[in-house]
Amino acid sequence: MNFNLNEAIEVLERTPQTLEGFLIGLSDGWIETNEGEGTWNVSEVVDHLIEGEKTNWIPRIEVILNEGENRSFPPFDRYSHLTKEAESSIDQKLAEFKKVRAESLARIKELIGSEEQFELTGIHPAFGEVKLRELLSTWVVHDLTHLSQIVRVMSERYRSDVGPWQEYLGVLKR
Amino acid sequence: MNFNLNEAIEVLERTPQTLEGFLIGLSDGWIETNEGEGTWNVSEVVDHLIEGEKTNWIPRIEVILNEGENRSFPPFDRYSHLTKEAESSIDQKLAEFKKVRAESLARIKELIGSEEQFELTGIHPAFGEVKLRELLSTWVVHDLTHLSQIVRVMSERYRSDVGPWQEYLGVLKR
Repeated sequence: MNFNLNEAIEVLERTPQTLEGFLIGLSDGWIETNEGEGTWNVSEVVDHLIEGEKTNWIPRIEVILNEGENRSFPPFDRYSHLTKEAESSIDQKLAEFKKVRAESLARIKELIGSEEQFELTGIHPAFGEVKLRELLSTWVVHDLTHLSQIVRVMSERYRSDVGPWQEYLGVLKR
Repeated sequence: MNFNLNEAIEVLERTPQTLEGFLIGLSDGWIETNEGEGTWNVSEVVDHLIEGEKTNWIPRIEVILNEGENRSFPPFDRYSHLTKEAESSIDQKLAEFKKVRAESLARIKELIGSEEQFELTGIHPAFGEVKLRELLSTWVVHDLTHLSQIVRVMSERYRSDVGPWQEYLGVLKR
């Protein structure tokens, strides 16, 4: 096990600035490209990250820490961001993500004061009992999964453009 | 085909600041972790990006644009960065990458003045004839490949920590 709360927060607090450095000012072609019908573009991935801050991570952490009778996680719709009006620009979305992520991390610092809390559990609808440290680790790797997705979606746009180099470029292997 | 020089440069010029936002200030545990024996850690990936600026991209582009008798690419050792002393910190390496990348992009603006140049060719040791636009597209996707690699290497560190969520996290599928 490698989980360490301070190191986990290091990654979580950098995701907004990483995405800003990567995405602000890019042409629409990069932001709007996807991997085919039913797949997300870069802007939709950022919507999903914002939604997670609002309805997934902190609510689930609070359920675990409440230690009450009902430790089942509240429902979370992974696709809800796709049904909303998506009128804001990518810059506005990145600013919102930065704001809600900062709020989440401030809340974490209020909620978690001792390593003993890491072993507290909640009930996941599919997996059953899960530990707080597993949920916190998952939050980190969820950020990394979606960073990886954004990079892969953008790469796909140049799949045929790279010509014979395609076989050398790991990100195009899927 | 989606290649467009200005859009390609948009990605190339953002890679250094993306890596800075993501990596500066992280604990050694994140920078030094790898995917097992013989695999690169985050710091070694940055070394490889620096090496590419010095010995790969611009030298190959210059060979294509020279249009002379010898259009064969100069040799390029993809592993040369591993044999050097790697004494600098990740912050120093990122600063060096930012500097050499800026120099490369300044050189591109001097070298490429017309879209007609995109169809000029050079000889790749393995593939034979390749076009300038394929090389430039490959440069972009090469950046994205190594961003993706860094994200994947860091994720690996928490593979067992995420517990039952492992199956939901795409970056852990390999």
